[in-house]
Amino acid sequence: MSDATKDSTPTGLELRPVGVIRSEITARADAPKQGFEGAPDVWLEVFPWAADGLHLVAEGDELIVITWFHQAHRDVFQVHPRSNPRNPLTGVFATRSPDRPNPLGLHPVVVRAVDGNRLRVGPIEAIDGTPVVDIKPVLSCTPRDPSAS
Amino acid sequence: MSDATKDSTPTGLELRPVGVIRSEITARADAPKQGFEGAPDVWLEVFPWAADGLHLVAEGDELIVITWFHQAHRDVFQVHPRSNPRNPLTGVFATRSPDRPNPLGLHPVVVRAVDGNRLRVGPIEAIDGTPVVDIKPVLSCTPRDPSAS
Repeated sequence: MSDATKDSTPTGLELRPVGVIRSEITARADAPKQGFEGAPDVWLEVFPWAADGLHLVAEGDELIVITWFHQAHRDVFQVHPRSNPRNPLTGVFATRSPDRPNPLGLHPVVVRAVDGNRLRVGPIEAIDGTPVVDIKPVLSCTPRDPSAS
Repeated sequence: MSDATKDSTPTGLELRPVGVIRSEITARADAPKQGFEGAPDVWLEVFPWAADGLHLVAEGDELIVITWFHQAHRDVFQVHPRSNPRNPLTGVFATRSPDRPNPLGLHPVVVRAVDGNRLRVGPIEAIDGTPVVDIKPVLSCTPRDPSAS
């Protein structure tokens, strides 16, 4: 066993969903691949036990919603990007494929409205029933200024 | 029980670490709050079972590393941002506090070098031994063009 695996790295890290996506999109086949590709707004329902975490979230905020792609395949390590066989086989860590060892989704959204423990957010391609595991504000998203590249 | 909790939302979503951070920073108190605040480059060691997922990751790529803040407190729902008591108490979903129900960290980095199943990446504030649970390429990070706001 290598140093990397024998030391204190924990296993079995357990996520507890803090909320759920309520979307008009109910099937993975009907979802755009990215939110900016025509995805709808949705309701993000935060469960009552986690609702205190929403304090000061407001309309107009830019957030990153982290979801759990509950229909993903976790034994996939390489894919043809965008499901196009003409794209070269690529490691999932170089793609946004929902199929990956830990099927976490990152969704940049804008808060359209706040209604108690529900946020109207979008655009977001996650399908109805998708668990939400975290919500964060957008900070600097890239280490370099995009306008400089 | 509400509709939101009684339906098919899974519980007990289990993350399996795909790698680990090897950093010169060994204590949380010594870590900058964000990577762009003077954090170092680190080695990101991907475990052999997940290394196929790195195929085509290359020097210069901009990635988002998702970590598990293994020293975080999961029972925290509101904080004073940046640990400054003069900042108003704020829901953790409106902050980047590592203390939150699911202590996931998002780290935008640049790949400085690739050495087998190890990536030299930075800047990143995660401390030595922090589990890595996912790696994704940077796409559009915000739903709006930052230059338009």
